Amino acid sequence: MAVYTEIGDDELEAFLGAYDIGGVLSLKGIAEGVENSNYFLQTERGRFILTLYEKRVAEGDLPFFLGLLDHLAARGVTCPSPVHGRDGAIVRRLAGRPAAIQTFLDGVSPKRPSAAHCGEAGAAMARLHRAGADFAPTRANALSLAGWAKLAAATAAAADGVQQGLRQAIADELAHLQAAWPKGLPEGVIHADMFPDNTLFVGERLTGVIDFYFACTDMYAYDVAVNLNAWCFEPDGSFNLTKGRALLHGYAAVRPLAANESAALPLLARGAALRFLLTRLYDWINRDPAALVRPKDPLQCLGWLRFHQHVEGAGDYGL
Amino acid sequence: MAVYTEIGDDELEAFLGAYDIGGVLSLKGIAEGVENSNYFLQTERGRFILTLYEKRVAEGDLPFFLGLLDHLAARGVTCPSPVHGRDGAIVRRLAGRPAAIQTFLDGVSPKRPSAAHCGEAGAAMARLHRAGADFAPTRANALSLAGWAKLAAATAAAADGVQQGLRQAIADELAHLQAAWPKGLPEGVIHADMFPDNTLFVGERLTGVIDFYFACTDMYAYDVAVNLNAWCFEPDGSFNLTKGRALLHGYAAVRPLAANESAALPLLARGAALRFLLTRLYDWINRDPAALVRPKDPLQCLGWLRFHQHVEGAGDYGL
Repeated sequence: MAVYTEIGDDELEAFLGAYDIGGVLSLKGIAEGVENSNYFLQTERGRFILTLYEKRVAEGDLPFFLGLLDHLAARGVTCPSPVHGRDGAIVRRLAGRPAAIQTFLDGVSPKRPSAAHCGEAGAAMARLHRAGADFAPTRANALSLAGWAKLAAATAAAADGVQQGLRQAIADELAHLQAAWPKGLPEGVIHADMFPDNTLFVGERLTGVIDFYFACTDMYAYDVAVNLNAWCFEPDGSFNLTKGRALLHGYAAVRPLAANESAALPLLARGAALRFLLTRLYDWINRDPAALVRPKDPLQCLGWLRFHQHVEGAGDYGL
Repeated sequence: MAVYTEIGDDELEAFLGAYDIGGVLSLKGIAEGVENSNYFLQTERGRFILTLYEKRVAEGDLPFFLGLLDHLAARGVTCPSPVHGRDGAIVRRLAGRPAAIQTFLDGVSPKRPSAAHCGEAGAAMARLHRAGADFAPTRANALSLAGWAKLAAATAAAADGVQQGLRQAIADELAHLQAAWPKGLPEGVIHADMFPDNTLFVGERLTGVIDFYFACTDMYAYDVAVNLNAWCFEPDGSFNLTKGRALLHGYAAVRPLAANESAALPLLARGAALRFLLTRLYDWINRDPAALVRPKDPLQCLGWLRFHQHVEGAGDYGL
């Protein structure tokens, strides 16, 4: 966030009065999360994250996101647990914005994940998929084929300014995926953005999965493919097979992949690489100089995509 | 800070290894402090603030600032206490920058201080002055007469673009203060920037004074005059006499003001108003669009200055 929303003393007191978490001891804006304003909140009863939802998160989606966390946390998934007010509500308003309080999770996001971190991430994703299987609400994945086509159109004019030939490379890949995108694979709630910076670890033990604001209903194996991109490439662009093996075996030990899911992994990984290539490219082209967070390099994802285009089967990822 | 310094996993572990505070449980960049990168650090032994000193704080001044905190905390002043490494050192390097760990203080900075807050602030300042009286190191106040003259010169060309006539108003005031600035008043360590956002309260109880990076050796009564500006004006520019009385009586109950200190208050308050007018004007003119913190309005300080120019004596402030 470029500028944190200022919260007045009185409105904070009134807001917290709706909860049974004691008086405020500390409130500090934290430099985390691009979409929202997040505050570290210490009260007499414990540590929490207070989130003000800024315009990039649709207010209508909040019941899905927060209801999902409530559902997953109740089933033992290590994710933030929304705090209910005395009236039972999870979302209320503060400083003119929708706001929610969630439990604080210990842990630090790994900057350079090890194979052990990858194995934990795979297992955590599988637990998330299993625990979410009986979550009734659904939310379409706005960043699948139709969303990619929109982003490809929105970035087409400027793409070659980022790298010569990028516009055509995106168009070709999108056409291929539109023709070949798998159907009929097992679906349910997926995280859809479980990058290392959306996980927390104490040492090599995973203590949290956070930032569910892209969660949606889609193929489980697509979520796994997102993680292959997010966790298993080195900064130099090479695929680390040891990490791939750790991630996939960590996942499969909790939720075995069906044959058609494994077979689809190379194609799904191409889709996932294109998804992050397109959103990063869009953010790069439209970057806000006042933003706290530097835009991520879209060309990193082009490297991932090039790798997947030459993969012959799930064995190449270590499965 | 526009962009937080990224701290690698390995360098953080190596850095914390120099302290006896246990392993890291959480590390989050906090949106506080314009001069430095601050992180909320939770370890197995407690809560801390980790600070990376960016270029605006001179590395040579750190022993003064941190030594002062060490001195004050040992004497019961509610300020952050620097954590010593096993080797006794307070400052070491992290991510290529000087870095230090301090204890975390509970409390929230009041957005709209009450008279009770003002009384606590006055008393805290007097305790700080008394506890610092036997702190041997000295540091000149870079933002007194000579510093104001430099800032007046640096802002002269653009001042009238902010408000017509501002350049002349500054020049006139500076000339007056250069001729009349008091000498011979009691001196010692002062905070020099004790605005409400540099204090912490739980309810109406002051739990901390923070951000000592303007601390220096100067007249105690000048520090009191800074606080009259910082705490006792309403957002509409009016001086709240109830707050002035609370602040001055809170101070005097701990450290009575000598007759020459009281008599000098109107002049010192003019100087303090000019100091913040000039630094805010400089920041306003040279504002960085990527900065997290919005520049503060310099014209607010011009209003303070106008008030002090018509004050007849310390009684007008409530003393």
